[in-house]
Amino acid sequence: MKQPNCMVAQSGGPTAAINASLAGVVSGVLASSRYHTCYGAVNGVLGILNENYIDLTETFAEPAELEKLKSTPAMYLGSCRCKLPDYKDDDSPYVFIFHQFAKLGIQAFFYIGGNDSMDTVLKLSDYAAKIGSDIRIIGIPKTIDNDLYATDHTPGFGSAAKYIASALLEIAHDTFIYAVKSVTIVEIMGRDAGWLTASSALARNSYNSAPHLIYLPETAFDRKRFLEDVKKQLSQRNNVIIAVSEGIRDKTGSYITSSKSAVDDFGHKQLSGAGKTLELLVKENIGVKVRSIELNVLQRCSAHLASKTDLEESFAQGEKGVALSEEGITAAMVCINRISNHPYTVSYDHAPIQSIANGAKTIPKQWINDRGNDIAPEMLEYLTPLIQGEAAVSYANGIPSYMNVSHLDHA
Amino acid sequence: MKQPNCMVAQSGGPTAAINASLAGVVSGVLASSRYHTCYGAVNGVLGILNENYIDLTETFAEPAELEKLKSTPAMYLGSCRCKLPDYKDDDSPYVFIFHQFAKLGIQAFFYIGGNDSMDTVLKLSDYAAKIGSDIRIIGIPKTIDNDLYATDHTPGFGSAAKYIASALLEIAHDTFIYAVKSVTIVEIMGRDAGWLTASSALARNSYNSAPHLIYLPETAFDRKRFLEDVKKQLSQRNNVIIAVSEGIRDKTGSYITSSKSAVDDFGHKQLSGAGKTLELLVKENIGVKVRSIELNVLQRCSAHLASKTDLEESFAQGEKGVALSEEGITAAMVCINRISNHPYTVSYDHAPIQSIANGAKTIPKQWINDRGNDIAPEMLEYLTPLIQGEAAVSYANGIPSYMNVSHLDHA
Repeated sequence: MKQPNCMVAQSGGPTAAINASLAGVVSGVLASSRYHTCYGAVNGVLGILNENYIDLTETFAEPAELEKLKSTPAMYLGSCRCKLPDYKDDDSPYVFIFHQFAKLGIQAFFYIGGNDSMDTVLKLSDYAAKIGSDIRIIGIPKTIDNDLYATDHTPGFGSAAKYIASALLEIAHDTFIYAVKSVTIVEIMGRDAGWLTASSALARNSYNSAPHLIYLPETAFDRKRFLEDVKKQLSQRNNVIIAVSEGIRDKTGSYITSSKSAVDDFGHKQLSGAGKTLELLVKENIGVKVRSIELNVLQRCSAHLASKTDLEESFAQGEKGVALSEEGITAAMVCINRISNHPYTVSYDHAPIQSIANGAKTIPKQWINDRGNDIAPEMLEYLTPLIQGEAAVSYANGIPSYMNVSHLDHA
Repeated sequence: MKQPNCMVAQSGGPTAAINASLAGVVSGVLASSRYHTCYGAVNGVLGILNENYIDLTETFAEPAELEKLKSTPAMYLGSCRCKLPDYKDDDSPYVFIFHQFAKLGIQAFFYIGGNDSMDTVLKLSDYAAKIGSDIRIIGIPKTIDNDLYATDHTPGFGSAAKYIASALLEIAHDTFIYAVKSVTIVEIMGRDAGWLTASSALARNSYNSAPHLIYLPETAFDRKRFLEDVKKQLSQRNNVIIAVSEGIRDKTGSYITSSKSAVDDFGHKQLSGAGKTLELLVKENIGVKVRSIELNVLQRCSAHLASKTDLEESFAQGEKGVALSEEGITAAMVCINRISNHPYTVSYDHAPIQSIANGAKTIPKQWINDRGNDIAPEMLEYLTPLIQGEAAVSYANGIPSYMNVSHLDHA
């Protein structure tokens, strides 16, 4: 077997841009004079534990295939929600994983994911240091939530923001047609940070001032003030449109939700119902026509409306990961620095993984208005460049043409 | 005042193509040697009752503006849900409307809408006949539901079908990433007819067999058989995706819904919760990971993903309405006949309004499979041509660029 080789995997929730980062890694390896084969582990670290690999250098030898991968939503390699144990408690998965690395001649492992995936990068890096392995462990960021530290913004966020803003504008057109008072509540993803909900403000243009109210998890939600806000808006216009984060909480920290909460493997509360809860509040207290809309998974997988800027930056961060590994960097995550807004310019760098894993970056207080029901102009300045440009999606038989992912849906 | 003139209005629920029909009417009038001005009544017949008009021949004098109107979602002129009384009970609105027609020199009135709007066309036609008016009253069809008689398919349906199929494919990509058993239920609009839900089958391609089950209002829904279907699918694959109409009913005709029903002005039940009801059924009886997604209003207003075929046909039907009025036709609806599927060819015609108003065309039994959990191949043959081609949407500052509709959102 020719070597050294490298390995890549994807983890966490889908985005429209995570395959662009995968394409960037493959492109980086294809151009590399160091690495021979790029293995893709199927379903995150589970793919290593199950020895389930795809030879990506072979699969994507044709540039057209790599191009198609860039605009395919969700994970070509599949995902997992798998939290590795502390190696001091149980080192058996680590022993197995590093045995696999040795067997396949792996000199670098790239993990594309969000907060929880960076926890895995940290643990693998710590274990590598402990056993004196020189395998480079590199995190490549991805999350629609935009809540990772040490980077200006995250791959996948710009595309989700573009979808949310476009959907909000279309919902506004849909809502404005009736000459009767109405309230429309749009519930947007974002458990702990309001970046996605804030991006709904990008729907505003020369004729559309919706969303008229924006509620973020960063500001304590007050039911009485909310009803005052809605009444004031209804006195000014017929159709009030409200963007609300699924993660809004009251001043005691309790989620504004009408449904029971469950807890996932990482200890996060699984939320639903913020939009529905506000709908009921308006119905009971104001009595106008009211509807709530949950954008749901479409905000993270609508690749047909991806941001070109996001896809290009995601690709570049995949390539950067390969370059960093060739420089001998390990225990790090690729990051993006914003150099200027006019013109929009960025540079790529890396940050130590210890500074990133398991934290969530929220919106700065000064980017939210004083009443806590809208964003401040600085926020718009930050968001606008990230949604520019449209993805080059091709269509076949009337629907988007994406990469074949039949290898994922096994019985 | 130069005359004769004509008037157009829009009514019912939004579609991504109803403004293409409006653009067709304006284009027909601009090219006409008969009509001078095309008035647009704002908010359907309410616009006439309130004397709220826009001079469309002036507003859309520039071809670029008319082009932009074609791809703008929902109603540029606004809508209403207004049922005119029987003129034998109360002729006062009719007297007012025909007085307005006389005052503005109106010789033709075009009403773009669905079932309920065709009821208005019928009533205005009957009243015109009774008073001996020669004003031509022409219906131009529109409904995402595709449930109008006397026409092969309705403007707006193809774009909604394209959105549903594309969203289903992206949801499939989103769902396939986890190697654990899951059920995803997608609730689709369509109160009495399953055309929209059936169009989810257009998401199937060389690697994607989702949706794996399709439940339509045309087939009595049986909870026990549904659970059998889901279990069988789960034995064959990890991730089962189900398309379900909001209007599914059991054999007694009761809606499968967990929420209370309300009744709108036309006596239709307002439904919600079919998807949520099936989600709970699966959760309680099968116990795998389950999620329900409501496509909601996005399936009717996502103009950024409109079908080019639909937009072109909708435009042509607007122009046809003007041509029919010039031929002296009245009390009629424009319709479309399918001449062949290979190549896809249509012709435009008209049908007497009596044959159309207030009925709902459902899917023929032979286009549904025997078990009632999928469509038959004939249905796919019918649907496929309608979603072909992509709308030419332009973007400004990262979001779609549509016509200014600020005239609709008044306080």
